[in-house]
Amino acid sequence: MDVGDRLCICLPSGRMLDEVIGLLEMASFDVEPLRSRDRELFVCGKEVCYVIAKPFDVVVYVSSGMADLGFVGSDVIAERGLPVVELLDTGLGFCRMVVAVKRGEEDRIFDLSLYRNRGLRVASKYPNVARKHFASRGLHAQVVEVSGSVELACRVGLSDCIVDLVQSGRTLAQNDLVEAETIFPVSTRVIGGPVKVRTKDHLVLEALKALESAVGHLKGVK
Amino acid sequence: MDVGDRLCICLPSGRMLDEVIGLLEMASFDVEPLRSRDRELFVCGKEVCYVIAKPFDVVVYVSSGMADLGFVGSDVIAERGLPVVELLDTGLGFCRMVVAVKRGEEDRIFDLSLYRNRGLRVASKYPNVARKHFASRGLHAQVVEVSGSVELACRVGLSDCIVDLVQSGRTLAQNDLVEAETIFPVSTRVIGGPVKVRTKDHLVLEALKALESAVGHLKGVK
Repeated sequence: MDVGDRLCICLPSGRMLDEVIGLLEMASFDVEPLRSRDRELFVCGKEVCYVIAKPFDVVVYVSSGMADLGFVGSDVIAERGLPVVELLDTGLGFCRMVVAVKRGEEDRIFDLSLYRNRGLRVASKYPNVARKHFASRGLHAQVVEVSGSVELACRVGLSDCIVDLVQSGRTLAQNDLVEAETIFPVSTRVIGGPVKVRTKDHLVLEALKALESAVGHLKGVK
Repeated sequence: MDVGDRLCICLPSGRMLDEVIGLLEMASFDVEPLRSRDRELFVCGKEVCYVIAKPFDVVVYVSSGMADLGFVGSDVIAERGLPVVELLDTGLGFCRMVVAVKRGEEDRIFDLSLYRNRGLRVASKYPNVARKHFASRGLHAQVVEVSGSVELACRVGLSDCIVDLVQSGRTLAQNDLVEAETIFPVSTRVIGGPVKVRTKDHLVLEALKALESAVGHLKGVK
């Protein structure tokens, strides 16, 4: 299968997929290939091709020029640090990147004197975000990169705090953790590649206009 | 919950968990806390505590000294490059790390002259393993790190080849890929930390002896 002259859009698998497809449908994209795809991760309609990839990979597909547009959370854009351009904030998947600590330690976490000798230990699935954030506060953080259950890492003493996404805060509470600081708000963004590897500028502009209008409608409805 | 004087063992969540628990039971470990754990990732019995973590995190728990022993694939040990010691090869989860290419390109992949200008593009969940392997062959590889569906990355033209785990080879065949080279065999290993952070040496030695005997029995049975 070949993309050819069609627009190629990369979508994030997982919890955001259905909402993103809903937005595309609202913006009058042909989403039929996505409905009938039967576990295929690369499907093409008459005008648009779709690649479905893990959120962290959406940035790879777009920055490499393989996909013209992508949908992905601002958490992933910040962590991967690849050259992509944010074109639109859909407002979908709203949550926040936070520093969380064990209950009762909220005030101690930013006390520089406590960590002068060994450095603050931070567990995170977002090592680059965590490192950058603590550096900006003048704290040297020793970042422990974990791929699952960051809360557990903190509970069993692998770290002093965690940097992670929070939506309702229920998982934090279950693990006796509390938010100490919000780092940045997170939502699903539309991204494009910085280099025009194909000459599909007008398709990209048209797609953006349609998406912008759908997002405006969504926000009006809320 | 505190580990105290008990042995702390870190187990990999996912497809290998049941087999590893079976091996521990065969070696007469108290696995009751694991049977009744009700989604808890940290459980303690009278003599042993267990942490259940993503395979990539098992190496973090053991190298940090949080866990005394861990079970994890040699693929993960090679990729993370953290200071742990391999103590025993259980033989479980046997598969191999390979270089795979599109069918028909088996012979071209190691032709140095083809990639002199732009470098060979490799997609992998194991960027460190991939980089190291191609460097050892004198090829400069441009590694695209993807977190899911490496085969797709190759199929849609994001890379010339992939470095990935293969067991039956069925997923490769479905994506019209073939093995070009085996990098190393993979199986679940028992690892320990290089620094003795707790004085539980005799517990670790006893545990290893029991596991060795169970593995011997398993291999005899096969």
